[in-house]
Amino acid sequence: MRTFKLVLAYDGSNYSGWQIQPGRITLQETLERALRKITGEEIRVAASGRTDAGVHALGQVVSFRSDTHLAPEVIQQALNAELPCDVAVLTACEATADFHATASALRKRYRYVLDDGPIRDVFNLRYVWHYRHRLDAEAMHRAAQALVGTHDFSSFETHGSPRESSIRTIFEISVERGQGAASGRLTVEVEADGFLYNMVRTIVGTLVEVGRGTRAEQWPAQVLAARDRKAAGQTAPPQGLFLVRVDY
Amino acid sequence: MRTFKLVLAYDGSNYSGWQIQPGRITLQETLERALRKITGEEIRVAASGRTDAGVHALGQVVSFRSDTHLAPEVIQQALNAELPCDVAVLTACEATADFHATASALRKRYRYVLDDGPIRDVFNLRYVWHYRHRLDAEAMHRAAQALVGTHDFSSFETHGSPRESSIRTIFEISVERGQGAASGRLTVEVEADGFLYNMVRTIVGTLVEVGRGTRAEQWPAQVLAARDRKAAGQTAPPQGLFLVRVDY
Repeated sequence: MRTFKLVLAYDGSNYSGWQIQPGRITLQETLERALRKITGEEIRVAASGRTDAGVHALGQVVSFRSDTHLAPEVIQQALNAELPCDVAVLTACEATADFHATASALRKRYRYVLDDGPIRDVFNLRYVWHYRHRLDAEAMHRAAQALVGTHDFSSFETHGSPRESSIRTIFEISVERGQGAASGRLTVEVEADGFLYNMVRTIVGTLVEVGRGTRAEQWPAQVLAARDRKAAGQTAPPQGLFLVRVDY
Repeated sequence: MRTFKLVLAYDGSNYSGWQIQPGRITLQETLERALRKITGEEIRVAASGRTDAGVHALGQVVSFRSDTHLAPEVIQQALNAELPCDVAVLTACEATADFHATASALRKRYRYVLDDGPIRDVFNLRYVWHYRHRLDAEAMHRAAQALVGTHDFSSFETHGSPRESSIRTIFEISVERGQGAASGRLTVEVEADGFLYNMVRTIVGTLVEVGRGTRAEQWPAQVLAARDRKAAGQTAPPQGLFLVRVDY
C-alpha cells in the first residue's frame, strides 16, 4: 500500500460540504468517485477537516492509501481531467505510511472575506459576506487580539460535532481592510492548532458587532470568558470562508 | 420628461445577454421590470450596446426617459434593492434631454481575460477563458498593434447584426500577462469608437493562435486585410469578456 497526499482547491458553492451524506453532492464523494474511476479501487479519503456547505478551500489537504502503481503527477493530471471544474488538485505527492491528513494536522489557517462597500460587488457574490454597515477594521483587529492564545473557545462553537475538548490555541488573528479598488473588502485571517465547529464564522459574527459599533472592543474578550455560545454574535454565512492552508 | 443615465455592473453568467428576447431572462427586461416597479411607468431603456449571453459589464451605460420625481440617488438605491444580486447600479444621474446611451457613445473599452496556467482557477471559472496551451503574451501584444487605426474589420465580425458600415477605429489594444499570483492570467484590452458583432471575441480567438505559436506575428494583419470572417481564428467564449467603460 502507498500513501498519497493531495492539496485541493475548490469552490464550495455547489456542494453540501466536504463529508459524505446520503442523497447530497459532497466533495468527499466527488473525489472518491474520481479516484475509483482512475484506480479501480474503493478508496476512502481523509481530509484535514470537514468544510461546511458553501465553504471554499484554497489548500485543503487530503490523504488516502492505494495499491496503484501510478505516479503522483499522473494521479494529479487524471484527477484534474476527471473532477468537475470547481475542484482542482494543486499538488499530489507520495507521503510516509504514517501520514494521515486529519490526525497529522498541526496548524490550519482560515480566511473570511467581508465586503462593506455601499454597492455589492456582483463578481464576488459567492465569495464574500456583503455587510450592510461600514465596519471599523482597526477596532475589529484590536478586539480580536484577546482571542490569541490557548483558551476554551466553547463560546464560539456550534454544538453537534464530537470533540474531546473545546480548548484550542490561536496563534494569530488579523483583520485588514483592502487598499485602492479593494477598499470595500475586509479580510479576517485566523491561524490555530485546530478549530471547533463554526468557530471562525462565529468569531467573525462577533467581531462585526465591534466593527459596526454596537459592541465595545472589550466585548470579544468577555464573550470568550463566558464559555457560552449564547454570549457570542451570529454565525457569519459560509460563502465568505476559505480554508487557506494546513501545516503538518 | 426627464432623462436619466445609469452605470451598471453585472455578472452576465445567468442571462441570455442584454437585449429582450421572448421566453428568455435578459438584462434589459430585468432592468425594465425593476424600473416599472419603482416608477409605475412602462420604461424602455437604451444601453450603450448589447452584450451577449454570458458576457459581463463593469460599466455598462443605460439611458431612459421618465416622468418620475424621484432623485437619481433614490432611483439608484431602489434599483439596487429591487434588482437581482448579480446586477448593481454603480451610479445614477440626470442627463441632458438629448443624451442617448446608444447614439451618444463615442468610445468603448472591452477587456478579455484568459488563464493559461497549468491548473484551472476554480474561483474564476465564470470570468476567464481557461486556455490549455501556454501563450506568449508579448508576441500577442506586438501582433495586435496591426489592428490599431481605422480599418474595415469585417474579418472579425460575425454576420447577423445590422450595421451601416464595418469600418471602425481601434484607438488602443494591449495584451498583458499578470504578475506574481496572477502570472497565469492574460488580459486583452481594446478601446474603439465602436465594435462589430463578436469583434473582440474574434480578435482574441485570432491572437491566441499567435500566442501559442501556430501562426506568425504578421498573421492578424493578413486576417484584417482579407476582409473575410473565414480568414480569422475562432470566436473566443463569452465568459472572459467584460464591457469596461463607455465614454460620451
